[in-house]
Amino acid sequence: MAELSAESGVPVATIKYYLREGLVPAGELTSPNQAQYQARHLQRLKLVRALLDVGGLSIVDVRDVVNAIDDRASTHDLLRVAQHGLVVRKNEVDDESRAWAMALINEVAEERQWDLGPDDVYAKSLVSLLCTFRDLGHDGLLEIFPHYAEIADAIAKVDLAAIGDLPTPELVVESAIVGTVLGDAMFIALRRIAQRHASRKVFGQADPLRSA
Amino acid sequence: MAELSAESGVPVATIKYYLREGLVPAGELTSPNQAQYQARHLQRLKLVRALLDVGGLSIVDVRDVVNAIDDRASTHDLLRVAQHGLVVRKNEVDDESRAWAMALINEVAEERQWDLGPDDVYAKSLVSLLCTFRDLGHDGLLEIFPHYAEIADAIAKVDLAAIGDLPTPELVVESAIVGTVLGDAMFIALRRIAQRHASRKVFGQADPLRSA
Repeated sequence: MAELSAESGVPVATIKYYLREGLVPAGELTSPNQAQYQARHLQRLKLVRALLDVGGLSIVDVRDVVNAIDDRASTHDLLRVAQHGLVVRKNEVDDESRAWAMALINEVAEERQWDLGPDDVYAKSLVSLLCTFRDLGHDGLLEIFPHYAEIADAIAKVDLAAIGDLPTPELVVESAIVGTVLGDAMFIALRRIAQRHASRKVFGQADPLRSA
Repeated sequence: MAELSAESGVPVATIKYYLREGLVPAGELTSPNQAQYQARHLQRLKLVRALLDVGGLSIVDVRDVVNAIDDRASTHDLLRVAQHGLVVRKNEVDDESRAWAMALINEVAEERQWDLGPDDVYAKSLVSLLCTFRDLGHDGLLEIFPHYAEIADAIAKVDLAAIGDLPTPELVVESAIVGTVLGDAMFIALRRIAQRHASRKVFGQADPLRSA
């Protein structure tokens, strides 16, 4: 374990904690006080650190993720555990608003040939978000919805191409998780940079957001 | 205040809490026990609820956001307060790794004509993420980086078009905040839908992620 700690830079006490929490599998016992750790332990340890520190996941979420990887979970389950960042909560929507939002969603889903029912967790998120835009009086933001859907299709194609031709199912699953959790963070950073760039280019010195 | 509560659906005790926390401005006193609330109070109350409930922001973040709106903050400051979701923390990167990542970032920034120095908060996030991809051995994920950058430019164009022609600076600022915070959530939901769709289309029944 001292070697594992030296190679990963993770303190021994922290590795023991991860072992207790089931985030990293136990090493093979070679004597009552001695366990052997392999390359896969080091890899798992790095993944756990990345999801916790860089991805900002909780211990519970990380356990879900590593269990999903070990069980070779279905894509759908993996996406479910990677729902972190998808914060849509107790926003109550009346029937009229729900019907209005679902009509917008169905139109976009049909155009993109997406299979998306009203009970889908993502459809529910979108209903809540669309109703919030309208309720706040920012109807202009509704125009971004079909454009975002088109752009989401473009990004999914990039994602699939990156993980599609890996040698083992384990690597595909791990890469899908890393790409989803850390890929969100990467895209958000790039989106902010691009927004700032576009804002400077469009508004220049006459930036209406800089009227103070 | 009872009317404001009835119109917004927010309990009086909660409105009082928002007033104390400085999230909603005080009404105009018409008598020692009577204050008058206007349309702008209702609008602000709705915005606060949306940022807390749908956007998942903390009370402290919401206060930063409403202060930024009231001060007509610069675009840059607004984007800074809207950094929620950009979780990149204590990931230490050595000099060689940083130089390697900055070279990738500079190449992309040059292609996109972005102004992006090494001390930029977003550049730092990207350094951390790129190094994590490499450190985990998922070099294939590095290929997504220039594609994501191109897609981020496309989404920024959509964002700017949606907020560019609003009548007052206040509305532009509020719309930029709502579009950024809730727009992230909308894009993440759409990205998951698109990934699921692409995965089904590419892998079909032979989905390697569904080998269990």
